[in-house]
Amino acid sequence: MNYSIIRYILFRILEFAALFMTLPCLVAAIYREKAGFAFAAVMIGSLIIAEIGKQFKPKSNVFYAREGFVTVSLSWILLSLVGALPFWLSGEIPSFVDALYETISGLTTTGASILPDVEGLSKSVQFWRLFTHWIGGMGVLVLIIAVLPLSGGYNMHLMRAESPGPTVGKLVPRVQSTAKILYGIYIGLTVLMILVLKIAGMSFYDSIVLSFSTLGTGGFAVLNSSIGSYSIIIQVIFIIFMILGALNFNVYYLLLVAKKPKEAFKHEEARTFLIMVFVAAALITWNIRGYYDNIGIAFKDALFQVVSVGSSTGYATTNYDLWPEFSKVVLFMVMAVGACAGSTGGGFKVSRVMILLQDMKNELLRVVHPQIVKKPHLEGRAVDDVTVRSVKSYLTIYLVIYLISFLLLSLDKYDFTTNFTAVMANINNCGPGLNAAGPTCNYGGYSVFSKFVLMFDMLTGRLELLPMLILFSPKTWKKY
Amino acid sequence: MNYSIIRYILFRILEFAALFMTLPCLVAAIYREKAGFAFAAVMIGSLIIAEIGKQFKPKSNVFYAREGFVTVSLSWILLSLVGALPFWLSGEIPSFVDALYETISGLTTTGASILPDVEGLSKSVQFWRLFTHWIGGMGVLVLIIAVLPLSGGYNMHLMRAESPGPTVGKLVPRVQSTAKILYGIYIGLTVLMILVLKIAGMSFYDSIVLSFSTLGTGGFAVLNSSIGSYSIIIQVIFIIFMILGALNFNVYYLLLVAKKPKEAFKHEEARTFLIMVFVAAALITWNIRGYYDNIGIAFKDALFQVVSVGSSTGYATTNYDLWPEFSKVVLFMVMAVGACAGSTGGGFKVSRVMILLQDMKNELLRVVHPQIVKKPHLEGRAVDDVTVRSVKSYLTIYLVIYLISFLLLSLDKYDFTTNFTAVMANINNCGPGLNAAGPTCNYGGYSVFSKFVLMFDMLTGRLELLPMLILFSPKTWKKY
Repeated sequence: MNYSIIRYILFRILEFAALFMTLPCLVAAIYREKAGFAFAAVMIGSLIIAEIGKQFKPKSNVFYAREGFVTVSLSWILLSLVGALPFWLSGEIPSFVDALYETISGLTTTGASILPDVEGLSKSVQFWRLFTHWIGGMGVLVLIIAVLPLSGGYNMHLMRAESPGPTVGKLVPRVQSTAKILYGIYIGLTVLMILVLKIAGMSFYDSIVLSFSTLGTGGFAVLNSSIGSYSIIIQVIFIIFMILGALNFNVYYLLLVAKKPKEAFKHEEARTFLIMVFVAAALITWNIRGYYDNIGIAFKDALFQVVSVGSSTGYATTNYDLWPEFSKVVLFMVMAVGACAGSTGGGFKVSRVMILLQDMKNELLRVVHPQIVKKPHLEGRAVDDVTVRSVKSYLTIYLVIYLISFLLLSLDKYDFTTNFTAVMANINNCGPGLNAAGPTCNYGGYSVFSKFVLMFDMLTGRLELLPMLILFSPKTWKKY
Repeated sequence: MNYSIIRYILFRILEFAALFMTLPCLVAAIYREKAGFAFAAVMIGSLIIAEIGKQFKPKSNVFYAREGFVTVSLSWILLSLVGALPFWLSGEIPSFVDALYETISGLTTTGASILPDVEGLSKSVQFWRLFTHWIGGMGVLVLIIAVLPLSGGYNMHLMRAESPGPTVGKLVPRVQSTAKILYGIYIGLTVLMILVLKIAGMSFYDSIVLSFSTLGTGGFAVLNSSIGSYSIIIQVIFIIFMILGALNFNVYYLLLVAKKPKEAFKHEEARTFLIMVFVAAALITWNIRGYYDNIGIAFKDALFQVVSVGSSTGYATTNYDLWPEFSKVVLFMVMAVGACAGSTGGGFKVSRVMILLQDMKNELLRVVHPQIVKKPHLEGRAVDDVTVRSVKSYLTIYLVIYLISFLLLSLDKYDFTTNFTAVMANINNCGPGLNAAGPTCNYGGYSVFSKFVLMFDMLTGRLELLPMLILFSPKTWKKY
């Protein structure tokens, strides 16, 4: 293990953390809030440590997948710890564990909260809370790759460890260019959403922070009613941008950069995601039709909720925990699948499900026709054996973490449904689950132990299992 | 598809069904019950049809895996339909759907019941109800292979399709001899249990039928309180024989036939099963200690329940649905794993879990050391790639059936926990789940539609997914 390079990158991460904090400092200055001192203190402290630490250059450039995974998971843990400090120092989240939970929930774009009242937060703390969604949505190491001249082989290993999906989403041969294109699209979509929300009548501040939360597919909101008290037009705008955040960014690359609109519209994963959300919304609309006078409003609420959990955002316009059982189970399943690979959304990922279902079909075919050998296909290409094998192992690892977390949560005071859906909502970075983890509740009632389990789940889910797990393997820490 | 041979075997199955019915006829004669007429009518009817049908010999001996799977699933459906007739004709289960549910639950050794009061049944109907567990435990096609001179290649395909586990449990080169040894051990264990229960003071009738239910790892009982009102000694006898039913029969082969006691005691799957149940029982004992005055009784109840769900029997000595959440989740997980391959028990199977966990470990290792290639091992041998791949696909297929069933059940009136654990209890052939599917409840409250979903799950679980699924593939029915 090449410790020196990991240490070096971690100091750069700290530098970026300081950089990010300038924005809430600015917000605090505008609104003259004393929370600004907390942000300033953390910013200055981080910057000093980062500048000193940066002086110790890495001794060697050896950088393999192992270093990539370890760097990414340690970076996220560091960023979470530093990011939690202002919440805690400002006194607006008095418990540091709660502040850490809220920060991890923010960075991993989960949007699960321990706060019963989010309207009581100061503007700057609220800004930071929702801005963490935007930072975590595309990933901080992808950002570092985009802006720093880190040449050498390790860009790829970092990108692979932080980007979601069964295969690495390299749009162009150079990893740095890929990262730049991704952030370019991300910033473009964010600016577009801010403008659209502003035109639709939202305040400038709310437009900005809610665009961060939406395009990061996070789910933190500025009102206790989440998105429920906005006009129908604004709710539809949210639906559209949640979908945009959940699609594979390769679609935008094909459409805007490579100028291949035909290929963009044929993108199989994006199409499958859209089919999933519209079919699910139709099923729920049929199921809840008796609860509404107007079928159109029922469809709007159904679609909003489906897109919200499918994109792993976690906003709510209504308390869907009161819907009939079938609708809740449909939402649970859409949450389980999650967003597209290469998006800012979480979950198991649509493309993994596509690969598994094709593999299942092939396995059944093999019984009937043992001589036929078929491979899963994705975006018109056969998926190679190593990827298929990894996706299948991914399912096992996912279930093992899921079930252990569920078992540990069951030591707490809640029931089966609450715990089972809480794990799903946290590991898939969605946010709300069912029952006591439902959309009108919060995670503040869980014990400190349970909160740590859920924090682990959020990080593990966001980084797609392997990076966090190999931290615990003694083999990882052995010398070359 | 070679229809003529499938038809021929189905008529032989009908002949066996008639043969099985002689036993409840005898019981009815002894106790002078009019239910005997129902059994006699079905027996004579089946025999006449079978003897006529048998005259049409198969035109061709072509018999591949495809024919094996289709024959096995159709045999089980036929046996379920015929087996349900006496329940219905005798009037003791007035609804045919309920009678069918009860029969499938019996044959698949699930033990889930639609009857609120099992003590009201006549002796002969009760006998048939518990005898179906014994028939289904080892499998009716395995029996046919053992006793009929069906030479040719198809023994292996039938055995493979009906026997549980990731690999085929051929003990000796000849399939027929394997089947004979398996049934020999099975009968020996059953006789032993009957004697032990009789000596412990149980009536002869109860000893016989409960031995059928226990060694088939079924779970139907003769009292409404399941096993709860028997003495502690008898409860311990049940624990021991449930374990014996759930162990891989290879262990008994090594011990009794091959005379290799060392290898028998080293059997990895059997050891893992034992470790699982004792660790789970210890965890539950710790968790429920406050509910009992005597820690020994707490451990007895904990071990009984764990062995009951782990072996997929489903007996209860206490209403574990009142235990704390953690204990219920431990039981749920043990139920999810289930028994050993090559046993009469159901579930996902211990050996499959062992293969998946080793594959998961190897996948993590591959990240750290990409050059190391490791394979899962079982019983001292490397598991070949095809088996590993199949086991991993099995997990996907299992989850897909699980989640679809869960979704369909959610259209009914029960809650998340009830439906979720009901699917587990049915697909893993255990019996009771949690909440409204708990050990003191029954499945009678589900709609006809839900009952059909659960019947499909029981059959699919017992036959290990593929045989039932390929019935629905149009490719299966194509000509050669």
